[in-house]
Amino acid sequence: MILTVTLNTALDITYRVRSLRPHATHRVSEVAERPGGKGVNVARVLAALGHDVTVTGFAGGHTGAVLRAMLAPAPAAPVARERGGADTPGALVDALVPVSGATRRTVAVVDERTGDTTQLNEPGPQISPAEWAAFLGRYQELLPGAEAVALCGSLPPGVPVGAYAGLVRAARSAGVPVLLDTSGEALRRGVAARPDIIKPNAGELAELTGSHEPLRATQDARRRGAHAVVASLGADGLLAVTPEGHWRAAPPAPVHGNPTGAGDSAVAGLLSGLVDHLPWPDRLARAAALSAATVRAPAAGEFDGPAYTELLGRVRVTGAASAA
Amino acid sequence: MILTVTLNTALDITYRVRSLRPHATHRVSEVAERPGGKGVNVARVLAALGHDVTVTGFAGGHTGAVLRAMLAPAPAAPVARERGGADTPGALVDALVPVSGATRRTVAVVDERTGDTTQLNEPGPQISPAEWAAFLGRYQELLPGAEAVALCGSLPPGVPVGAYAGLVRAARSAGVPVLLDTSGEALRRGVAARPDIIKPNAGELAELTGSHEPLRATQDARRRGAHAVVASLGADGLLAVTPEGHWRAAPPAPVHGNPTGAGDSAVAGLLSGLVDHLPWPDRLARAAALSAATVRAPAAGEFDGPAYTELLGRVRVTGAASAA
Repeated sequence: MILTVTLNTALDITYRVRSLRPHATHRVSEVAERPGGKGVNVARVLAALGHDVTVTGFAGGHTGAVLRAMLAPAPAAPVARERGGADTPGALVDALVPVSGATRRTVAVVDERTGDTTQLNEPGPQISPAEWAAFLGRYQELLPGAEAVALCGSLPPGVPVGAYAGLVRAARSAGVPVLLDTSGEALRRGVAARPDIIKPNAGELAELTGSHEPLRATQDARRRGAHAVVASLGADGLLAVTPEGHWRAAPPAPVHGNPTGAGDSAVAGLLSGLVDHLPWPDRLARAAALSAATVRAPAAGEFDGPAYTELLGRVRVTGAASAA
Repeated sequence: MILTVTLNTALDITYRVRSLRPHATHRVSEVAERPGGKGVNVARVLAALGHDVTVTGFAGGHTGAVLRAMLAPAPAAPVARERGGADTPGALVDALVPVSGATRRTVAVVDERTGDTTQLNEPGPQISPAEWAAFLGRYQELLPGAEAVALCGSLPPGVPVGAYAGLVRAARSAGVPVLLDTSGEALRRGVAARPDIIKPNAGELAELTGSHEPLRATQDARRRGAHAVVASLGADGLLAVTPEGHWRAAPPAPVHGNPTGAGDSAVAGLLSGLVDHLPWPDRLARAAALSAATVRAPAAGEFDGPAYTELLGRVRVTGAASAA
């Protein structure tokens, strides 16, 4: 089982409007709703790849109830994890901790004229000390059964800013590989606790290190404590600096579409390759192909199964293993 | 009891953001949620004025459940219907008909920098023929107990565009005074069924009659079937053309603030004056004062009780009763 932690889960709402104009009234032509928060997105991709996943974090209020109800049904049809392979979808187990506040909504407003998306993110519910303690207990219960754990996304109000550092240390004490995907001060503190992998995007990496030069920033992030750093650089693909070597992985040509969720799919690819004991170049190929297949999918945050299978054979991984 | 009909109820969500910019990601600093749809707003104001109100229409899905839960508590503290008067709040009875689709959300995004509001309105649930029939049954049951009925707002998908015409005729057959507040084709057809009062705003009136000259358009709307027309003209107050005479009613000076819900408060004032058997000038004073007190209230769609009491004595009503 792979464990994903989403402390600030979300009910993701997508609106389509003819053309978004500030100060106007808009008739929404289409409404879509799905469970969200980075770790929930990662779990959905992992389950589609055939992995058993457990989702923890917080959920509350009527939005939390909707989110949990939508997590319950079987995930999307499975796709081959490898070319030629075939799997049944993995189980997606809901181990969210109930809270008295309401799970936040996010609203993505898609302008049909330009294709642009305008995003409105609610802050998330206030987490009480008792709720935080309940989560820590749940996390400790789940860790021994996990092959890997992913700590994903922002912290809701009330959760201490050093939260991820503690969760990283607990995973490492339990001997469970831990991936951290967050930003700002939560990332800064989490990195210092020496996670196995971090997956910042270019902006998060620059904020963490002060450098806008990706290779330098990635190396600096390792010095700050991360064992491996996989930076997602948009159209430039992935840049990985790990104890085993450093690599770049990208599809053969830029992929056009909606980048929402591409980073979460990359995290899912890295975890999938990790628990399948693949060498780094193959993990990166999986992550880059999933990421590109997500950009190419018509619905935001979904990934296109056939595109993934096709891209997996065409992603170019360049770099070298360390001499060690 | 006053009956308000809201076929397209809504869960009204208000977001505050620093500055709304298309294509950007926004952190919402404040979230407010309340039951909405024009007839629900009218009912809330009526209950605060001390009237017993029954709310019918449709509600469904998790958003409908939230809306109904929020209707249940006692309404806001009562305010004097007249200067010097004092009432206890009226009962607000939920007689909404459950539907399988989900009640729509509306999202109002308030830009803290400019004070502007950008509105996103979901379309509303698909109403099945069986659900529409269930509503018609409920409406016929409720009519005999009503002193007046208000038909308010847009029609959700699946409800016939001539719906309001039928509801107007049923009310008139039952001898219950009926006010219609809608727009477009639903208004055009509803007017032809000869409602006692319509309350269009300037845009709705122009769309109905083709005339942008308020007095001419108001007279034309009467010729189309409405017994009385009360046009709400924003800062210019109310213009009423009725069988008893024609009047204008406005506060002594323009009121600044948020006009959301001002029209619904005017409808509540007209109904309140109607069931209290006030002459037209006093009904209009009540409607204009409530409308202005709504513009002046800090929260969108609420009305400021003390401001209402104060404005009620200062609204200027000019015009004349008919010679008949």
